Amino acid sequence: MDVLICTAKDQHAWRGALAACLPEARIHTGPDAVDCDYAVVWKPSPELFARQQRLKALFSLGAGVNALLAMPSLPRDVPLVRMEDAGMADQMVEYALYVALREFRRFRDYARDESQARWAPQPLRTRGSYRIGILGLGVLGGAVAQALAGFGFDVGGWSRGAKDLPGVACEHGDAGLDALLRRSDLVMLFLPLTRETDTLLDRVRLALLPAGAVLANLSRGELVDDGALLEALDTGALGAAYLDVFREEPLPADHRFWSHPRVEMTPHVAALTDVAVACEQVAGKIRRLEAGLPISGLVDRLREY
Amino acid sequence: MDVLICTAKDQHAWRGALAACLPEARIHTGPDAVDCDYAVVWKPSPELFARQQRLKALFSLGAGVNALLAMPSLPRDVPLVRMEDAGMADQMVEYALYVALREFRRFRDYARDESQARWAPQPLRTRGSYRIGILGLGVLGGAVAQALAGFGFDVGGWSRGAKDLPGVACEHGDAGLDALLRRSDLVMLFLPLTRETDTLLDRVRLALLPAGAVLANLSRGELVDDGALLEALDTGALGAAYLDVFREEPLPADHRFWSHPRVEMTPHVAALTDVAVACEQVAGKIRRLEAGLPISGLVDRLREY
Repeated sequence: MDVLICTAKDQHAWRGALAACLPEARIHTGPDAVDCDYAVVWKPSPELFARQQRLKALFSLGAGVNALLAMPSLPRDVPLVRMEDAGMADQMVEYALYVALREFRRFRDYARDESQARWAPQPLRTRGSYRIGILGLGVLGGAVAQALAGFGFDVGGWSRGAKDLPGVACEHGDAGLDALLRRSDLVMLFLPLTRETDTLLDRVRLALLPAGAVLANLSRGELVDDGALLEALDTGALGAAYLDVFREEPLPADHRFWSHPRVEMTPHVAALTDVAVACEQVAGKIRRLEAGLPISGLVDRLREY
Repeated sequence: MDVLICTAKDQHAWRGALAACLPEARIHTGPDAVDCDYAVVWKPSPELFARQQRLKALFSLGAGVNALLAMPSLPRDVPLVRMEDAGMADQMVEYALYVALREFRRFRDYARDESQARWAPQPLRTRGSYRIGILGLGVLGGAVAQALAGFGFDVGGWSRGAKDLPGVACEHGDAGLDALLRRSDLVMLFLPLTRETDTLLDRVRLALLPAGAVLANLSRGELVDDGALLEALDTGALGAAYLDVFREEPLPADHRFWSHPRVEMTPHVAALTDVAVACEQVAGKIRRLEAGLPISGLVDRLREY
């Protein structure tokens, strides 16, 4: 069996880890590889698919496959498999809990006070009075919603189809989205990027949020209208935005997000794929496919995730 | 039964809450109150005790009683009762978890990067590789240590006498303190202020911390040598200090902490007493004392807490 691994960086580490998990395979790298049975890719060059003509399946090393699906050269008849939770849900919970605690306990306000040498204790509030809305209740959003609800926050969730998560007030559909936005002190995005979710948080929907509400986008930059977001931050309609993802990455050095006092950003690190865990997951699925068994994580190309 | 309530602020709210919990008592406020059976105090004036000559017990509305014990007019023969957990442990856990997540996930580093328009993702690290040292394993420190250990961090603890907490590597005594300091990426203080703990974190002990370690003081400003702390922050020996408490409060406007780039401060809000919960606790203890039953939270004046 021949397996091609093609990553944007750390190629050597990925190759070693995959070889360790799949000793029965010959592991190839680079554009001149022989025709392979499987390809494991992260941000591949478009030429890759012209050369690889007999792939049985294509594995994405990320959970989001929107960039792969947008490549015209992507073969239409090869099963595409996205990365499922490979340590990513735990990391998303860490990031989300951090944002929730920073806002709920007003650490952002106190940082502003500190810069003004202002001593201004604010009254106690209870976790149950702090309303968090989670958009997207898949593997990542579902884990975050349940962790925050378990911590005692008032958590609502929204997904395309109806879902049921213990402790989470679940909404779905357009009306459900509007209702959730209207009642959320903090909204966090855990959605795949598809035709339906592209710019989902537009000017109209951002305006539904309560005054001073906070947005956290840990999924894809394209989910939000940047211009409308900046306007809402400028006027103070929104209190802050926590951004890990951007329409262009790295974010251009002259982008307003860098210096905006209401933006707290990180460089697309909310959930990094753990190399060892990811390779084990891919190896296990390759073995199932070779044995003719079904696997999870197959991308539905109509649904786009 | 006559009960005097004497608080530095929100006197009206405290009076109402205590009256609701203890309807059988006459509740008094102010310096001209009749001789009372019990006094419930927060930062009382020294004259109070000259007037109150027949107190059966004195209740502190704070967990730390060092300021009360330092008052020369404090009657030596009246039992002093400190506030036990009245929602404070949950709040300390929130604050501690926030600091741990901010440091472990490098949000402070990314904030600095953002101010320089610098896109620099840092590699993944695991919770189990992040070493947290908790000094003080009482009601508050013990709750924090167990919560952080439960979250998966590598937690060690130190207390005056030997303790045993599940999941926490417990040390005690001078040698134990040094060993814990040497191995902690993040040290958090949950100690009472006593003769023994005054300036416990002096120049010598601060120097034991690993390069770039972080200190969080949520207990009493006097536990730390401020000059030595500033020096360690200036040189970068310490990465940051999270400070909620100070030797003088409010912190004077010209203090270097306000503007120090490595200090993140809050105005003594880490754990606020919940008025309703605190009054229920005091009322319950007054009823037990009236019934001749033992109560918890009695201050040992030799131990000073």
